Amino acid sequence: MVDGWRLWTRLSELAEIGKHEEGGVARLSFTPEERAAKDLVASYMREAGLAVREDAAGNLFGRREGSDPGAPAVLVGSHLDSVLGGGDFDGPLGVIGGIEVLQIMDEEGVETERPVEVVAFTDEEGARFSLGMIGSRALTGELSQEDLRHEDQDGVSVAEAMRGAVLDPARIGEAARSSDSLAAYLELHIEQGKVLEAEGLPVGVVTGIAGPVWLDLSFAGEAGHAGTTPMGARRDALAAAAEVVGIIEEEASATGSTVGTVGRIGARPGGINIIPGRVELSLDLRDIDGAVRDRVEGRIRERAGEACERRGIGLEFEELQRLPPAPCSAEIQAAIAAACEREGMRPFTLPSGAGHDGMHVAGLCPMGMIFVRSRDGISHNPKERSSPEDCEAGCKVLYSTVLDLATRG
Amino acid sequence: MVDGWRLWTRLSELAEIGKHEEGGVARLSFTPEERAAKDLVASYMREAGLAVREDAAGNLFGRREGSDPGAPAVLVGSHLDSVLGGGDFDGPLGVIGGIEVLQIMDEEGVETERPVEVVAFTDEEGARFSLGMIGSRALTGELSQEDLRHEDQDGVSVAEAMRGAVLDPARIGEAARSSDSLAAYLELHIEQGKVLEAEGLPVGVVTGIAGPVWLDLSFAGEAGHAGTTPMGARRDALAAAAEVVGIIEEEASATGSTVGTVGRIGARPGGINIIPGRVELSLDLRDIDGAVRDRVEGRIRERAGEACERRGIGLEFEELQRLPPAPCSAEIQAAIAAACEREGMRPFTLPSGAGHDGMHVAGLCPMGMIFVRSRDGISHNPKERSSPEDCEAGCKVLYSTVLDLATRG
Repeated sequence: MVDGWRLWTRLSELAEIGKHEEGGVARLSFTPEERAAKDLVASYMREAGLAVREDAAGNLFGRREGSDPGAPAVLVGSHLDSVLGGGDFDGPLGVIGGIEVLQIMDEEGVETERPVEVVAFTDEEGARFSLGMIGSRALTGELSQEDLRHEDQDGVSVAEAMRGAVLDPARIGEAARSSDSLAAYLELHIEQGKVLEAEGLPVGVVTGIAGPVWLDLSFAGEAGHAGTTPMGARRDALAAAAEVVGIIEEEASATGSTVGTVGRIGARPGGINIIPGRVELSLDLRDIDGAVRDRVEGRIRERAGEACERRGIGLEFEELQRLPPAPCSAEIQAAIAAACEREGMRPFTLPSGAGHDGMHVAGLCPMGMIFVRSRDGISHNPKERSSPEDCEAGCKVLYSTVLDLATRG
Repeated sequence: MVDGWRLWTRLSELAEIGKHEEGGVARLSFTPEERAAKDLVASYMREAGLAVREDAAGNLFGRREGSDPGAPAVLVGSHLDSVLGGGDFDGPLGVIGGIEVLQIMDEEGVETERPVEVVAFTDEEGARFSLGMIGSRALTGELSQEDLRHEDQDGVSVAEAMRGAVLDPARIGEAARSSDSLAAYLELHIEQGKVLEAEGLPVGVVTGIAGPVWLDLSFAGEAGHAGTTPMGARRDALAAAAEVVGIIEEEASATGSTVGTVGRIGARPGGINIIPGRVELSLDLRDIDGAVRDRVEGRIRERAGEACERRGIGLEFEELQRLPPAPCSAEIQAAIAAACEREGMRPFTLPSGAGHDGMHVAGLCPMGMIFVRSRDGISHNPKERSSPEDCEAGCKVLYSTVLDLATRG
C-alpha cells in the first residue's frame, strides 16, 4: 500500500530546495535549484527501482518495464519548477506521487502488461520565460526553435539557458515521443481552488483544463515633467494602463467563469517626477469555455483600444501563448472515478482553472487528472498547503488508476 | 556681451556626458557621469577666472570677489544631475549661463561691490534616491543624517554613495552657509511648460515655485493562482492600485491647477500567472497653492482608503518629502523685470510647476528665477529643447540682473 509517510517526507525534502528566506520556494527552469531538485528526484526514482533518463528538453523520466515490452507506456507525472514565491505542492505532488506508485509496485512485485513511466516535466509554470510547459511541448514535438528565443527578465533566452544546463537546444526535437509509445497520461495535482474544500472531499476527477491566453500589452504615451505638464495636456501611459487594468477586471468578472489577471507591470522611464511614457503589462485570461474566453478577450481589446485612442496613447498586443481548453479523456475519467469508489471516496468531477502539462500531452494520448484538496484554495503562494492525509488519498487513487490502465493489455 | 556661441557650445559639450544610446541623458548623483560633468564645468569655471571649490555635499562653486570683500554674495546657479532619459537643458542652462555671466564680467573687467558665485548643486532631481535637492538642502543646513539614509533602487544609501564619491557624510553640516553670507539667489532655468511658447516670449519672470508632496503607496493583498482564483474571491493588490491611479488622475484634474503623477509602479511577486500580492507606487502631487494641494491629497487618501477597504487590501502611505510652495522675492522679480525691459523684452510673470533648488535657498536669502521658453513644453525627456537664441536671451537677462543685484552695496 501507498506509504503516506514516505510521500510526505519526500515532499518536505524537496520543498527545502529553492526555499526563500521571505517564505515560499523559487525553482526556475535551468537554474541550480531546478538541477538540485531533479538530482534529488532522480535518487528517489532509483530507490524505486526505475531506469532513469533525461531527455533533450531536460524532462526527467523513470521507467518500469511491463510484461509486454512492445506495449505503449502509461505515463504519470507533473513538474518540479515553481513560480517565484510558490508553494511546496504545485508540481512536486504529481512527481513524488508517481514515484511512490511505482515504488509500491516494485516493493510488492506487482506485474503490469504495459510499462509505466514517471516524468518530471521541464518548466511547466512559465515563471522564467513567460512561455511555460516547455517540457510537455517538447514531448509532443510542438516546441520550435522560435519558442526557444523567449527571453527571461535578464534577456537570457531559453536556448541560452539550456546551454547553461548542458542541454543542446538544436537537439530539442529528440525529446518528441510518438503517439504509439504512450497509452495514457495521468497527473496527480493539487486543485489550487476551493471546490473540493467546499464539497468536503479530499480528491476529485478533473473534466478538463481551461485554456489560457497570455498577452503582453504595450502602452506608448509621452514622458514629461511631473510638475509642469497640466493634467489635460498629458499622454500618460500609466494612467491609460490603469484604466485598462480596470477594464480587464470588469470584463472577466462579468462572465462568472472567466478569470483575467495582470501579474506584471512596469513603467518607464520610472522616475518619481516623470510622467511615464511607456508601460508594459501582462494579461493571463482563462476559461473552460474557449468561446466565452475569446468573447471576453474581444471586449477587452475593444474597450482598451477606445480608452487609449481617447487618451492619445498607442496600444499594442503581443500574443505569448494561446491554448484551447483541453477536455480529459472520458475513459480515464471513468477509471479515476472507479478508483475513487474502490478507495471508499465519492467520485466528484470538477474542471481545472489552472493550466497543466496534460493540455499538451493530450495531443499524444488520452489524458486524465486527479485533484487533491487545497487548503483555502491558495496556490502560487507560500501558504499553499494540502494535508498529508489528502496527499495520501490522492496517491492511492493514482495507484489504483495506474494499475487499472497498465494492466489493460 | 554674452557670448551665445560659447554658451551653446558648452551646453552641447556637457550634453555628451551620460548620453544614452536610446536617447536622452542619465547623470545620477554620485556617479562617474556626474563626476565627469562636474570636472568639465570646473574647467569652464577656471576659464572664467573663478576660484573653484567643492563643499561637503559635493556642490561645486566658482567665486568672483567684489570690491567689498565682506559683502554678502550674489549666488547664481542650478544643477548638473538629470532624471533617467532626461534632456540637455534642465539644470545645465543655469550653471553654464551663470559661468557665462561671470566670464563676461571677467573679460570686460566689470567690477561689482558684492562677490558673485556660481553653483552647481548636487542631486536636484531626486531621480536616484527619491529625495532631491540634496545640495541646496545641505546649503541651508536642513539636510539631516536621517535624510542620508534614503536608498536608491539597488539599496545604496545617500551616505554610501557619498563615500563612493570621496565625500564624508558625517561632515555634511559643513556645507551649510550662513544667511548673512548671501545677498540673493538667482536661477536661470528652462520653463518645462508651454506658457512662454503660447505668449510668444523667450523669457519670463517667475512668481513662485509649486510645492511638491512625494508619497510612496504600498498595497497589500494576497498572491494567488491566476487560473483558479475566481474574480470575486481575489484580493488583487494591482487591481486596487489601478483604481487608485484613476482616483489620483481624477482628483488632480478636478482642480485645474494641481498635478498628480504616478511615475513608478511595481507588482510582486511579478509572475504572469500570479495575482499580485503587493504593489508599490509613487505619487508626486504639486500646486502653487499649498491649500489646494493639501485638499487634493486629503481626497486621494480618503477615496484610496475606501477603495482598498472595499477590496480587502491593506494600504499604507509613506511620506518621502513635503515642501511648501516658495514665493519669489518681489524685489528680485522687479530686478528681473527691469532687466527684461533693458534687453528689449516684455516682462511677463508666470509660476513654476516644477520644483527647484531655489525652494530651499529661499530659506537663506531672497530668491528669484528666470525662465527660458521650452519647445512644446517638453522636459524630463530626450526631446527637451530650447533654441540657442532663447538661451542667449535668458543669459542676457541673467547678466543684467546679476549686475544690478551685485552693484548694490
